[in-house]
Amino acid sequence: MARTGRRPGGGSGTQQAILDAARTAFTEFGYDGATIRGIAGKAGVDPALVHHYFGTKEHLFVAAMELPFEPSVLLPTLLEPGLDGLGERLVRMLLSIWDGMGEQNPFAALLRSAMTHERAAAMFREFATSAIFSTVVKAIDADRPELRTGMVASQIAGLVMTRYLLKLPAMVEATPDELVAGIGPTLQRYLTEPLNLPTG
Amino acid sequence: MARTGRRPGGGSGTQQAILDAARTAFTEFGYDGATIRGIAGKAGVDPALVHHYFGTKEHLFVAAMELPFEPSVLLPTLLEPGLDGLGERLVRMLLSIWDGMGEQNPFAALLRSAMTHERAAAMFREFATSAIFSTVVKAIDADRPELRTGMVASQIAGLVMTRYLLKLPAMVEATPDELVAGIGPTLQRYLTEPLNLPTG
Repeated sequence: MARTGRRPGGGSGTQQAILDAARTAFTEFGYDGATIRGIAGKAGVDPALVHHYFGTKEHLFVAAMELPFEPSVLLPTLLEPGLDGLGERLVRMLLSIWDGMGEQNPFAALLRSAMTHERAAAMFREFATSAIFSTVVKAIDADRPELRTGMVASQIAGLVMTRYLLKLPAMVEATPDELVAGIGPTLQRYLTEPLNLPTG
Repeated sequence: MARTGRRPGGGSGTQQAILDAARTAFTEFGYDGATIRGIAGKAGVDPALVHHYFGTKEHLFVAAMELPFEPSVLLPTLLEPGLDGLGERLVRMLLSIWDGMGEQNPFAALLRSAMTHERAAAMFREFATSAIFSTVVKAIDADRPELRTGMVASQIAGLVMTRYLLKLPAMVEATPDELVAGIGPTLQRYLTEPLNLPTG
């Protein structure tokens, strides 16, 4: 877009234009493929203004998709006390965020569309890998950190799916304390305990 | 539908008409709400003919939805050797069924639509409760069998979601043996081990 076409760069109209351009770009090119430069161009503003308003690409994604949490804030908080009890803290945090949201929350919408559209799945996969899994993988002090992180993601995804999307009665009726006691140790085992994987 | 409108009741055209009527009825009324009588009426045949061709409502659902397994056959096979090692057998069975199917399998389609449409979610929930969970709940010899079954469902749902639908690289690349060793003990704990749930 020509420099003369750029917006002056003030006010909420500009921020909205950036968010709209970001949503389009993330959907079209995926999380990895979308660039701040490209999004700025599409919104008709200088890339520096995108950084000024939204910081990193991760922040911009969180804002554009209206996610209820910021991985770069949430993960250090979870990891800071160390790996001890991390499984239970993860379940408790997830439940407190999700139980507190309404029926139609944007993250559920993103997850639904990732289940049904390959392009949205790629975007979700790339965002999760880049903003969440890579940090967890680095924090794990055991063999096979990628597989361990994947299994943590599988149990968390299943908890979300059965409690919030499929709404299986037993999972809807369970209290947060019960789910923390039941599922926390699973995540803890995936994160820190010996897995006795087959060798060779 | 008038008796005179009924099909003579032979040949694959009749079976196809029953399957079409069943799909419509299950989607419209849910698994619990759909009846063999109603489906027969819609297909213009005698209910006895539906039973003759398809047996129980569960069998008809499996046939109409083209599910790759028959719970009333699969579950006794899994449960027959007892609760010992059941977690690992469950994971291995699931992987052998699903890894063997193509990219577009009907059960994945059902699960996707259950994630996005409340009516499909209700149908899935009712079928799973009636044909799968109730049998597992009865087989569990420990406190809180419904919650335990729900947690088993959550880890299985998450395994399916991350390996086959979202396709997280770590979960796609894991071998069946690794997933059996990693996730089997989770299911075993949910099924048979003390959960140390909060009291009161």
